[in-house]
Amino acid sequence: MGTRVEVVQPEASGIESLEAYLERQRSKINQCLDEVFQEPRNPVTKAACYSLFSASKRIRPIFALEVCRAICGDENKAMPVAQALEMLHTYSLVHDDLPAMDNDDLRRGKPTNHKVYGEARAILAGDGLLTKAFEVLAGSGSAPDLVRIRWIKVLAIAAGMDGMVLGQDMDIGVEEPASLELLESLHRKKTGALLSASVVMGAIAAEAPRPTVEALREFAMDMGLAFQIQDDVLDVIGGKELGKTAKSDEKNEKLTYVSLLGLDKAGAEGKRWYQKALDVLRTLSFPHSHRLEELTRFVIERKF
Amino acid sequence: MGTRVEVVQPEASGIESLEAYLERQRSKINQCLDEVFQEPRNPVTKAACYSLFSASKRIRPIFALEVCRAICGDENKAMPVAQALEMLHTYSLVHDDLPAMDNDDLRRGKPTNHKVYGEARAILAGDGLLTKAFEVLAGSGSAPDLVRIRWIKVLAIAAGMDGMVLGQDMDIGVEEPASLELLESLHRKKTGALLSASVVMGAIAAEAPRPTVEALREFAMDMGLAFQIQDDVLDVIGGKELGKTAKSDEKNEKLTYVSLLGLDKAGAEGKRWYQKALDVLRTLSFPHSHRLEELTRFVIERKF
Repeated sequence: MGTRVEVVQPEASGIESLEAYLERQRSKINQCLDEVFQEPRNPVTKAACYSLFSASKRIRPIFALEVCRAICGDENKAMPVAQALEMLHTYSLVHDDLPAMDNDDLRRGKPTNHKVYGEARAILAGDGLLTKAFEVLAGSGSAPDLVRIRWIKVLAIAAGMDGMVLGQDMDIGVEEPASLELLESLHRKKTGALLSASVVMGAIAAEAPRPTVEALREFAMDMGLAFQIQDDVLDVIGGKELGKTAKSDEKNEKLTYVSLLGLDKAGAEGKRWYQKALDVLRTLSFPHSHRLEELTRFVIERKF
Repeated sequence: MGTRVEVVQPEASGIESLEAYLERQRSKINQCLDEVFQEPRNPVTKAACYSLFSASKRIRPIFALEVCRAICGDENKAMPVAQALEMLHTYSLVHDDLPAMDNDDLRRGKPTNHKVYGEARAILAGDGLLTKAFEVLAGSGSAPDLVRIRWIKVLAIAAGMDGMVLGQDMDIGVEEPASLELLESLHRKKTGALLSASVVMGAIAAEAPRPTVEALREFAMDMGLAFQIQDDVLDVIGGKELGKTAKSDEKNEKLTYVSLLGLDKAGAEGKRWYQKALDVLRTLSFPHSHRLEELTRFVIERKF
């Protein structure tokens, strides 16, 4: 189910390549999502699964697992987080693509949910995925109660009316004159909040001390901006591999880093945030942060 | 903020009338909701508050508080539940009213959310309220962690793709030939699941033993059907007091208890479920279930 990725050379013979690692993690995450949605029993769950199981980078769950592993050595503690994050991210895509929102026809290389199932069912499938994310976190295996509670708080705040929902609302309502500050604030909500939650929830799964969690929150926010800038760049230069309608931002007259700064300066801005994120990460000196650094670089160097 | 209610005579001098009790509870619930949304800071939160603070029966939170009080004597333990339930119920109304769904212009006596704020913001306001419900349950005051986890599980399952969301999806997609069995199954999901969650979550707040919780779940499901049947009846006979477009079901060619059975038989069916609910309640012999019985009667005798 995983999307095709650029071949990245392994750094040394015998070490798994980033590509192989990403494929392995995607496959693991897909398997765990499959376990939640075995044999979808009704049409609205089928609609939800259509979007959930379409080709996806699974970048948020991969970060959650990797952060957890970097801290405590066992990524499986963050598996409920991985599942919930992908459900929540997918709901946001399904709702964002609706005619009343971004009105997109193509997502993850396939017709958008409402194009296949109609608007009513797409709205409900999104609602269902959002709700299921919290069910999974509350009901999840062996995590201590307090860990679950902290996960749910972090995710609800990140996804809610002062986080991702606000970011999307700002994005729709944005008016000229636009500024870099406004755009940054918008994306700290729209993309940054959930990416940041992914990293923070991974750290909570590993029961990391609070100062570590807070430093990781900063790392993830910076990385989130780099990620969003690369998204804007790819919307302009990307082709089929992007999996959504290319130049849809331009079509919708959206304010983006590229429309505001031009391609070159947007690229430089992305690299700046990437470097900042990396600096924070290195101060934490996790024993196994090699993959985490690689993942962070992947965010800014990816081609899809 | 409370809606006008029928004057119900107090059973004895000195005992607070049901009307006064309902008004007092609504006012208490509104005050607690106010505390969550002090000074809405952004447009999407304002849109959410528009619907959340419109005149409402607050029947779900009132049940949650009353069940908790009947069991342990302290209704305040269920206050986070009351807040979350009303947020969740309001989200479902905002989304159900959307043009792609029931396309309603009037709700709780005012123009529907999308009529005032546009479709995009109405979708987001609904998403935000749903998310906030889980934030409130996870972050709530002094409840033990395990109680919060159980609340969240119960609410997510009731509201999700095998509960309320499925019920709404069934309602939109319903096709002839329709039967009483189909309609009952639909409403057990659409209305019953959340009413049942209200009662169950109130019992969990009171840390009631599991057999009590299960009996209350049955009570609430039966009451939920009585409630829905009365809704269908009021859609036909109701006037301005209903607070939504009267005869909107007929306009939308919806399958209802009235369209299936006619007014008289629908009324009788409602009374049957009411009596069944009452029977379950009486077997539980709570020391203070007088109000709970009154509330149950109110569900079937209400005029709005």
